Amino acid sequence: MPGRIKTGVIGATGMVGQNYIQMLARHPWFEVTYVAASPQSAGKRYADAVAGRWVMDEEIPEAVRDLTVGDASDIATARARCDLVFSAVEMDKQAVRNLEEQYAASGLAVVSNNSAHRWTEDVPMVIPEVNPHHLDVIPLQRKRRGWQKGLIVVKPNCSLQSYLPPIYALIRAGYAVESLIVTTMQAVSGAGYPGPASIDMIDNLIPFIPGEEEKSEQEPRKILGTVRDGKIILNDSLQISAHCNRVPTINGHLACVSLKFGGRKPPLDEIIRIWQEFRAEPQELGLPSAPQPMLIYRDEANRPQPRRDRDAGRGMAITIGRLRPCPVLDIRFVALSHNTVRGAAGGAILIAELLQAKGYLG
Amino acid sequence: MPGRIKTGVIGATGMVGQNYIQMLARHPWFEVTYVAASPQSAGKRYADAVAGRWVMDEEIPEAVRDLTVGDASDIATARARCDLVFSAVEMDKQAVRNLEEQYAASGLAVVSNNSAHRWTEDVPMVIPEVNPHHLDVIPLQRKRRGWQKGLIVVKPNCSLQSYLPPIYALIRAGYAVESLIVTTMQAVSGAGYPGPASIDMIDNLIPFIPGEEEKSEQEPRKILGTVRDGKIILNDSLQISAHCNRVPTINGHLACVSLKFGGRKPPLDEIIRIWQEFRAEPQELGLPSAPQPMLIYRDEANRPQPRRDRDAGRGMAITIGRLRPCPVLDIRFVALSHNTVRGAAGGAILIAELLQAKGYLG
Amino acid sequence: MPGRIKTGVIGATGMVGQNYIQMLARHPWFEVTYVAASPQSAGKRYADAVAGRWVMDEEIPEAVRDLTVGDASDIATARARCDLVFSAVEMDKQAVRNLEEQYAASGLAVVSNNSAHRWTEDVPMVIPEVNPHHLDVIPLQRKRRGWQKGLIVVKPNCSLQSYLPPIYALIRAGYAVESLIVTTMQAVSGAGYPGPASIDMIDNLIPFIPGEEEKSEQEPRKILGTVRDGKIILNDSLQISAHCNRVPTINGHLACVSLKFGGRKPPLDEIIRIWQEFRAEPQELGLPSAPQPMLIYRDEANRPQPRRDRDAGRGMAITIGRLRPCPVLDIRFVALSHNTVRGAAGGAILIAELLQAKGYLG
Amino acid sequence: MPGRIKTGVIGATGMVGQNYIQMLARHPWFEVTYVAASPQSAGKRYADAVAGRWVMDEEIPEAVRDLTVGDASDIATARARCDLVFSAVEMDKQAVRNLEEQYAASGLAVVSNNSAHRWTEDVPMVIPEVNPHHLDVIPLQRKRRGWQKGLIVVKPNCSLQSYLPPIYALIRAGYAVESLIVTTMQAVSGAGYPGPASIDMIDNLIPFIPGEEEKSEQEPRKILGTVRDGKIILNDSLQISAHCNRVPTINGHLACVSLKFGGRKPPLDEIIRIWQEFRAEPQELGLPSAPQPMLIYRDEANRPQPRRDRDAGRGMAITIGRLRPCPVLDIRFVALSHNTVRGAAGGAILIAELLQAKGYLG
Repeated sequence: MPGRIKTGVIGATGMVGQNYIQMLARHPWFEVTYVAASPQSAGKRYADAVAGRWVMDEEIPEAVRDLTVGDASDIATARARCDLVFSAVEMDKQAVRNLEEQYAASGLAVVSNNSAHRWTEDVPMVIPEVNPHHLDVIPLQRKRRGWQKGLIVVKPNCSLQSYLPPIYALIRAGYAVESLIVTTMQAVSGAGYPGPASIDMIDNLIPFIPGEEEKSEQEPRKILGTVRDGKIILNDSLQISAHCNRVPTINGHLACVSLKFGGRKPPLDEIIRIWQEFRAEPQELGLPSAPQPMLIYRDEANRPQPRRDRDAGRGMAITIGRLRPCPVLDIRFVALSHNTVRGAAGGAILIAELLQAKGYLG
Repeated sequence: MPGRIKTGVIGATGMVGQNYIQMLARHPWFEVTYVAASPQSAGKRYADAVAGRWVMDEEIPEAVRDLTVGDASDIATARARCDLVFSAVEMDKQAVRNLEEQYAASGLAVVSNNSAHRWTEDVPMVIPEVNPHHLDVIPLQRKRRGWQKGLIVVKPNCSLQSYLPPIYALIRAGYAVESLIVTTMQAVSGAGYPGPASIDMIDNLIPFIPGEEEKSEQEPRKILGTVRDGKIILNDSLQISAHCNRVPTINGHLACVSLKFGGRKPPLDEIIRIWQEFRAEPQELGLPSAPQPMLIYRDEANRPQPRRDRDAGRGMAITIGRLRPCPVLDIRFVALSHNTVRGAAGGAILIAELLQAKGYLG
Repeated sequence: MPGRIKTGVIGATGMVGQNYIQMLARHPWFEVTYVAASPQSAGKRYADAVAGRWVMDEEIPEAVRDLTVGDASDIATARARCDLVFSAVEMDKQAVRNLEEQYAASGLAVVSNNSAHRWTEDVPMVIPEVNPHHLDVIPLQRKRRGWQKGLIVVKPNCSLQSYLPPIYALIRAGYAVESLIVTTMQAVSGAGYPGPASIDMIDNLIPFIPGEEEKSEQEPRKILGTVRDGKIILNDSLQISAHCNRVPTINGHLACVSLKFGGRKPPLDEIIRIWQEFRAEPQELGLPSAPQPMLIYRDEANRPQPRRDRDAGRGMAITIGRLRPCPVLDIRFVALSHNTVRGAAGGAILIAELLQAKGYLG
Repeated sequence: MPGRIKTGVIGATGMVGQNYIQMLARHPWFEVTYVAASPQSAGKRYADAVAGRWVMDEEIPEAVRDLTVGDASDIATARARCDLVFSAVEMDKQAVRNLEEQYAASGLAVVSNNSAHRWTEDVPMVIPEVNPHHLDVIPLQRKRRGWQKGLIVVKPNCSLQSYLPPIYALIRAGYAVESLIVTTMQAVSGAGYPGPASIDMIDNLIPFIPGEEEKSEQEPRKILGTVRDGKIILNDSLQISAHCNRVPTINGHLACVSLKFGGRKPPLDEIIRIWQEFRAEPQELGLPSAPQPMLIYRDEANRPQPRRDRDAGRGMAITIGRLRPCPVLDIRFVALSHNTVRGAAGGAILIAELLQAKGYLG
């Protein structure tokens, strides 16, 4: 695949970084030409740097095994080796903000999993099927910061990716949503490696994930926001209450949702039709990672299930089931997404594909 | 322990029946003198009848091992051997209704786990701390049916036992509750033996339990109802929306609750105080199985957890945590109860203790 | 893919049958044109017949969804629809033996997962990389039984597939093996659906699998046997002691092996070399399902692991690790194979490919 | 309980330390009057020091909650507060050796879980039912080191506690054992907290535990050794080959054992009789923690199982099952012990009870 975009993974030795390495192994547009990590790993062969902590179920791709790990703080080398970087660094927020801005200032497009820049008002937080138009702030982002080619885009928290797209589909179809109460059952991979101890997860679950409920409740305000004057104006029309639980599954965040409409209430079969027909810009552009369809509705009473549905659409689709009236709000349903694919590396790669399709890369 | 009440377990070979056998092993008031099951088991020694399918973690109690299993349809023998029977039979509903009525007609007090009589209007469905006064219908139950000493009382579904008592405590304290949305994560033991297949529960959960949401939503209407003219009048003031999930834990049903008050809204510290000070008739009577206290509030952010909290109060207490405001309704919290103790055999034994304390037995 | 061999799956609604359906979905040589099951399923659309009990992680293949399920006892229809059948029926052994013989007598090639014919002396029990030459008995099988085109071949038990091929590789390289003690940790899928109850597999394991140790110890005698006069002469030179355990994994049987050589003892690096260079007839013939390589040796101290290594070679390779001296016998190691792929449907499909390559089909 | 021995737990905040705290809560002879840990915890209230990392299923005992945590390196305070200390410190081996010797030199009896002193030739490594006579080296230990009242005794690794006592029972009955091959399936609690990551233990197991096989193979040489001239002479007559696996259970190490006798071979029923009748010094002395009986043989084909049998004898008994001939060695069986009770804190407490009964304390 000649002519692929040279791509770096910053924070390449951690679990999210490993996910990027694995998912990019056969990507038609992006080629991993550079990996960077902390100073302890810098200088090592990638395969040596992750020896004993490669936790993916597939092997390290051949093309990456022998790359020399760079130091994440070495911007110049990154710039020399690639045009696009995926940021999966884990440091304190201010340090991440600075680092990602340095990468962008050097001319690199930065797509980040880190939460540091999620609330920066000229940094889009994007689910490509929901708010692709938020990329419109990039020209002003560049202008304001004096960047020529660089840019920063971030992906939101994994926990909301199972329920926000189906809700957005209803909003887009003209059915305003006023409030929702969501209880998530989230997989252990969402906590990175090592994540929850097995002694806490055998014959047990934990009804708390630090910071997760706040992200689940707040980030949709920005994702559903509108662009004005190169900034993203928050949308405060939707109230969310989130209960987040850690459960003993490997991958797949499941959400039980009760929802109240703000105005007209669609009948149930209309909702299912809206979901089944939902197509957005990534589907229309035919982006390589865009699932076709994005939203899958299953009729069986006992679906979606994490192990059986998380891989739908190669981990990029969202599976919904059990749509029924809610005796307290209006409707309720269950939704599931793959947290380390759609909710992390896959979602970020789809952002990068959208950037490329819209001409923001190179 | 001389003078204990002679007690039978009908449906003694199934998992609920085994729970009764184990929990009654050291009971100060009740002595298992009779066990009955299906015709296939009848005539066998109890230990032989459950060989290979005794699933309790403790051994079969010595006093029960050698009892001869009776035929559940043989009312006369049951009547000759005991004064009280716990019904854990599994048959179609009409058959259960008939059988339990025959036991009662013979003069036996019947406390049942089965759902067959839950909606019979003169049969109380009792959580002893919530609606002990529903036993007041027993005299009219007897009169209407021509029973001298017999009676039937049933226990409600296990899934609601984690959240209804804390909500009742608030109602009793003068804070009307208008609606609640509850998502449960229920243990596999709730489905009996064998219950869910391990292949469905490893790295997975199932967002559906047949019939469970209906029971969770409807049974509180009766439990919170009022007694009038020897019948229980349903309470329709509380709207409930339940999402019920099966998760890979052995015991302990956990519920994430969002709740809206009907009138005045108590501050959070007042709610915790109400819970911590909650005492009801079983506590005041000092019933042997009554937990002291019944409601335990934990301050830690990550509690209650099924494995760590289900055994509180020897499995009869309810553990609550994470009380906080709800952005959509008024408050939210997490509650946990032991489904096979409080939610099944233990709850029924506490009913029987209440019956004895109130003079309904013998 | 025109010209593919018309293939039937008998016992198509059970878990092994479903595995066949899934694995054959994209097979280059075989096309599922017929499915059969018990009389209760017969006449239904396949998708309807397995509704609610399709347990594969992928969906029912489009090409099979609408097939009408035949009655497994209807030989004529099977013969009219296909040339090859995979038998995954579950009945008593004598009934299976009769049924499979009727299929063969009608002219069908039968490859069976069932254990009924494993000890029939003119029926080969084949691991294609170990004893492909046992197919040489087919001409005499046909002659003796008066079959023109029909034949029966069976695959051995799944538990031995992780350790017998590595041991055979050593024997083939000239190092006689005298005895081995093997402890297996076997996945729940090996028991079919529903298989072990989750209440027995959460925070637990079961040190017993009915019949499994006998199969593990006896079947290698036939697989390593020699063909003489159209019969397979048992090999009694290898003594096996098997401890079989059921553990809470979905797929992947793992074996801890201690082994004693009968004569010369190869050094450890020689053993690894033998494994890494091992190629047998399926590899040489380039059969579509033959893994290249079959035996994978991993250097990491903590491998193979069921979830991480079972899919090696698309589930058809065997992963070995931890080769080291044994203080009691000679050497010890750990081996893993995918029980429902290599150990069941995949192994049987590889047998069918070998039959085709050797001219036994059609 | 007046007059109980003042007891300290050194390393009290870790998981083994917590086990001691929990198990000593109601001990008739020992009273926890002192807890010590690292400098970071020193000075805090114990309940504060373990806040957020108390992982026992029971609450912190009232009597210990308010103890002030001492610094483990402060020998004088420990000496002032107690006469006996349980050492559960985690440091490098030389530091542990020095620290434990300083405690002993100050006059304290030290019973240690740490492996640092297991190979010190005048330090007994004791399973009270197997080698209580090794305590006879204490007078010479004291003399050689110039200690007046102090002493050090250690307990062996948890993995061998399931199989060594049953084997010792056979040896004591006159049946020499020449070799054994054992495969263990060990619970996650054996690795302390946090121990194995849940992502490594869901739908998986790990066929390797660092250092565990060496301990399993070597420590029996000392435990079965003989005392001569105040030293323990290793017993090299028994060859052991251990395969150690980590499996997803909370507690309970299970071992599959194949065994070869050195001389006479007892019939199977004789072996069961030897186990059932086995009594040793702790049983004869009626020590509070001594299980009666120590060895439990179960007839059921599928026992022992970790969750169902680990609590036998309050976690101090060993459950054995599946005794049968071994086609390669002589016999085989399955054995189970509770790794954090018998294999850790409970085993050490039993050692302390034995020390007290034999007059070594105070």
